[in-house]
Amino acid sequence: MKSRKFIPKAVVLLSGGLDSAVTLYYAGKSGFKPFCLIFDYGQRHIKEISFARRLALKAGCGYKIVKISLPWNGSSLLGKRVSLPKRKNVITGKQKKVIPSTYVPARNIIFLSFALSYAEAIGSEAVFIGAHSQDYSGYPDCRPEFFKAFDRAAKVGTKTGIQGQGIRIIAPLLNKSKAEIIRLGSYLGVPFELTWSCYSGGKYPCGKCDSCYYRAKGFKEARNLRDTLADKAKGVP
Amino acid sequence: MKSRKFIPKAVVLLSGGLDSAVTLYYAGKSGFKPFCLIFDYGQRHIKEISFARRLALKAGCGYKIVKISLPWNGSSLLGKRVSLPKRKNVITGKQKKVIPSTYVPARNIIFLSFALSYAEAIGSEAVFIGAHSQDYSGYPDCRPEFFKAFDRAAKVGTKTGIQGQGIRIIAPLLNKSKAEIIRLGSYLGVPFELTWSCYSGGKYPCGKCDSCYYRAKGFKEARNLRDTLADKAKGVP
Repeated sequence: MKSRKFIPKAVVLLSGGLDSAVTLYYAGKSGFKPFCLIFDYGQRHIKEISFARRLALKAGCGYKIVKISLPWNGSSLLGKRVSLPKRKNVITGKQKKVIPSTYVPARNIIFLSFALSYAEAIGSEAVFIGAHSQDYSGYPDCRPEFFKAFDRAAKVGTKTGIQGQGIRIIAPLLNKSKAEIIRLGSYLGVPFELTWSCYSGGKYPCGKCDSCYYRAKGFKEARNLRDTLADKAKGVP
Repeated sequence: MKSRKFIPKAVVLLSGGLDSAVTLYYAGKSGFKPFCLIFDYGQRHIKEISFARRLALKAGCGYKIVKISLPWNGSSLLGKRVSLPKRKNVITGKQKKVIPSTYVPARNIIFLSFALSYAEAIGSEAVFIGAHSQDYSGYPDCRPEFFKAFDRAAKVGTKTGIQGQGIRIIAPLLNKSKAEIIRLGSYLGVPFELTWSCYSGGKYPCGKCDSCYYRAKGFKEARNLRDTLADKAKGVP
């Protein structure tokens, strides 16, 4: 009798943005069968949901959409009342870290909690999240310390964590720059044309928000990086 | 000028059950201004939501109701497909711990995540949860280890945690028995008639589910405890 190979499942948080798309393909490449989890949380850029669905279909993965309604304010990403910060307000490495108005209180904690629940329900071994600390202006729930702490909470607070191996929280992009993420995505064959980053959610990317800025900068740097490597290979000093 | 006394805010997870009602009154007694958070998560016993609302109103607190829809199965508490366990399946202290079918994957983690988000949005210093580990058949997310780990995640994963004192997760009933909780509730003036415990959500409590059993047992023991104390006071050996 031919034995069938066991493929472990993984839940991937998919926003429709560039980072989560790379994470999805990375999870697949790492030997997992990905199940995507998409959130409709009243974000301004609701457009990203349709991008996320198309990405999941393109990658041949199942997906679930969870609708969340937060009956309190607290972020410029949720309502039209607070305006989105323009590039001038975005921090650089040397400036003092400021948490921008696009921070949604405890967003990643909520997302990861649902992912844990989904992972337990389908018997998944891991939850992948495309967060990274270098970009996106220092959101507290994108930092390595947070993921470590949440991983511990997942270990002791779930049935799988007590009775089995537990559900690992994996953030493979955590220490990568946007350029490195894009290069990784190119290698993995991520369809970047199916990703959406802009916060405003207009017909075309606004080119002014944090997210547009980092995306453009990332692609530029990834190109330079590639040229530099190509030059090196050619022997150009 | 007369200085106005500062009253710190606290978010209280309110289910409409006995434990969360006692927790609400406890939070008020501890010097906090409570804000209740009620969840409509497709529970069988949806009736408890109206009890929770009445409790919040009775205690003179504001409340928010969050509607959550989990698009996956995994608990007898959510659907009608899996039947509720009867008392014979409920563990006792000496038996091996079994997690019952009423366990909702990562429920407390999801509830606490929303509570954190609410707490950050309104500038609350604490989140109160009425969980306790002695009763309710060993749900993993009711254990002290879990609350400790989640408290840490809340500390490092929120804006308040980084910039300020952080939001404390307080579970005041954690080491109390049901009888002790009822005695504490009596002392605090909790209107027990406005609480609902039964899982089935019928017109009257079923008297058969875990929750009914522990409630009845708790009241009986609390009565015995009171009688014993009264006897001691009277000098009865």
